[in-house]
Amino acid sequence: MQTDLTHPKDHALIPVSAIEEFGENEPIQLDCGHDLAPFSIAYQTYGKLNEARTNAVLICHALTGDQYAADTHPLTGKPGWWSRMIGPGKPIDTDHYFVICTNVLGGCMGSTGPASLNPETGRPYGLDFPVITIADMVRAQERLIERLGIPSLFAVVGGSMGGMQVLEWAASYPEKVFSAIPIATAARHSSQNIAFHEVGRQAVMADPDWRGGRYLEAGVRPRKGLAVARMAAHITYLSDEALHRKFGRNLQDRDCVTFGFDADFQVESYLRHQGMSFVDRFDANSYLYITRAMDYFDLAQDHGGLAQAFRKARSRFCVVSFTSDWLYPTRESREIVQALNAVAANVSFVEIESDKGHDAFLLHEPELFDAVSGFLSAAAERRGL
Amino acid sequence: MQTDLTHPKDHALIPVSAIEEFGENEPIQLDCGHDLAPFSIAYQTYGKLNEARTNAVLICHALTGDQYAADTHPLTGKPGWWSRMIGPGKPIDTDHYFVICTNVLGGCMGSTGPASLNPETGRPYGLDFPVITIADMVRAQERLIERLGIPSLFAVVGGSMGGMQVLEWAASYPEKVFSAIPIATAARHSSQNIAFHEVGRQAVMADPDWRGGRYLEAGVRPRKGLAVARMAAHITYLSDEALHRKFGRNLQDRDCVTFGFDADFQVESYLRHQGMSFVDRFDANSYLYITRAMDYFDLAQDHGGLAQAFRKARSRFCVVSFTSDWLYPTRESREIVQALNAVAANVSFVEIESDKGHDAFLLHEPELFDAVSGFLSAAAERRGL
Repeated sequence: MQTDLTHPKDHALIPVSAIEEFGENEPIQLDCGHDLAPFSIAYQTYGKLNEARTNAVLICHALTGDQYAADTHPLTGKPGWWSRMIGPGKPIDTDHYFVICTNVLGGCMGSTGPASLNPETGRPYGLDFPVITIADMVRAQERLIERLGIPSLFAVVGGSMGGMQVLEWAASYPEKVFSAIPIATAARHSSQNIAFHEVGRQAVMADPDWRGGRYLEAGVRPRKGLAVARMAAHITYLSDEALHRKFGRNLQDRDCVTFGFDADFQVESYLRHQGMSFVDRFDANSYLYITRAMDYFDLAQDHGGLAQAFRKARSRFCVVSFTSDWLYPTRESREIVQALNAVAANVSFVEIESDKGHDAFLLHEPELFDAVSGFLSAAAERRGL
Repeated sequence: MQTDLTHPKDHALIPVSAIEEFGENEPIQLDCGHDLAPFSIAYQTYGKLNEARTNAVLICHALTGDQYAADTHPLTGKPGWWSRMIGPGKPIDTDHYFVICTNVLGGCMGSTGPASLNPETGRPYGLDFPVITIADMVRAQERLIERLGIPSLFAVVGGSMGGMQVLEWAASYPEKVFSAIPIATAARHSSQNIAFHEVGRQAVMADPDWRGGRYLEAGVRPRKGLAVARMAAHITYLSDEALHRKFGRNLQDRDCVTFGFDADFQVESYLRHQGMSFVDRFDANSYLYITRAMDYFDLAQDHGGLAQAFRKARSRFCVVSFTSDWLYPTRESREIVQALNAVAANVSFVEIESDKGHDAFLLHEPELFDAVSGFLSAAAERRGL
């Protein structure tokens, strides 16, 4: 079932990962109307599937995440993005649960995306790749779960865009989601969020090395544009307080300002580093496609109302927000909770006091760990795990 | 005293304005240690100076503002940026006050800046222009006021970066400021604000048409980079609520999303327009220099403590903030008020309930108009105007 594949380095930043391939005769019907085939979904697993196949937990990653949730990232050499959350004895305990994390459709770590070869042309898709949605990502995940022989998931868990996928799972496949933990997310992308994404896309597209999306064939990358996009986005992941606490107006390796345009301030140096290190692990077109999928996300619009979206939901929900998250503020989590209450769903809501901003879901937040761990334990008992 | 000057179009976007020139023997000592000479300050005036020369109000503009505060902008054809505030019968009443608004040093509307000719080389300064500070801008304004024969200002008024100049005036020339109205500002630029500025600068510098700052000689402009910088900044000028109210997730001239990267959403279209129209009226290097001046602003650091900065202040202060301004939040205005209180200054503080965000100071805000009008009337009475 696991295929180790090393893709040509010039096509994408793709390391060895488990990849499930869906052939010409197994297309995925996308929201845009296009039938995509063939396609591949790359994923990592942690822990063991029990005999009853009832202990699978699907982890959904955020915009720039990938399937390496709990093990060393093959490109950066850093611990997985949720290694605090997932592992033996951790809140999502791999001694008890079989954890699956896929790279989203449209991604650049092995799942089919704009950097993949277009079978019709033999060249990378570039902008010929169809625009995908959060629902399309979830459809692809559902196909993988089916392929793995898992009839229903014990839990679907994710933060930010991962939380959008969690909500979409609960709305689209209610019978396959026993419990759901959407964290630091919203049922629709706000105007401000669309605006920030548009800035990022324009930054990428303004880079002449983007070449209308055909940079891979030219052997270049829109590094500067993508770095600027990442810098702008990164500010939105942190709170004003977190930036103040972490950097304030501290200078970088100097006693006084240089009266120039070098990175005088630590926060400048930090942002530049965030931008430059990001381009080494992420594909610019994937960034365009995934931000677009988030912009398009509007569960109420897609289902004729938010409560309507959840009318068939059978899952237990644990909705989590952070007080200092200004990208997906608590009021947007409350809207989800209200809609769930309106259909008498089983929902608990945890607003966590934190000054770390949106990124809190990735950081050391004991209250988050306790909430996830406690909720999953109770749900496991209900499921007889 | 007024010199009408039309500068060569390829050097800067400079229309006809009053310009005061300071010669080789009248250098300005800059914070960076450089003596700048010659230099020019472009300005507009409204109303009449009284015989006692006691009714002059200096208006300080924000990052992308200019001297056209109250009359039609010569490049855009739009009303002056503060035409709601300044004019006959308006809060800053030109029937009573002589209003002066200068283009800041480092600007691109006639005052000396990076687009000006460097007398040493005969070429535009570009990055050879010295890095300036808010205090340098104020020094240049003080030279102009002196040249105009005005011994002291009745009031100094400004929002955002204009407010920084107001604070700097009160700290550096306490005997020359009778009253001061710093609006939607802070005594120092926060880490988050520096971060957003750095994104903008990197966007400009990433544009190959920036050419290390030497684009004017090459007959090009870093249009795309500057547009991205403006787009990112513009989001920070509005509140989340204002964006939601104004645009929400409304689509632009279409019934459904196009599954592409066109501006599907109104907010995208709006931002693109903001970016593109900005580059027609603003010089990219000026944007770098002025953002840098704001980043460097830290009144407490410069004066050994914020209260210390105001210890000689004799002005009456009216400090104004807006509830939904997340760029210069109310708590930063409170810090100013607390420091003023600590030195027993005469200060009133107005926090205005508004959902318009930082840009509220430029918009129709009756409570702001009432505050400014009332404060100035009382101060005028005190001054016997």
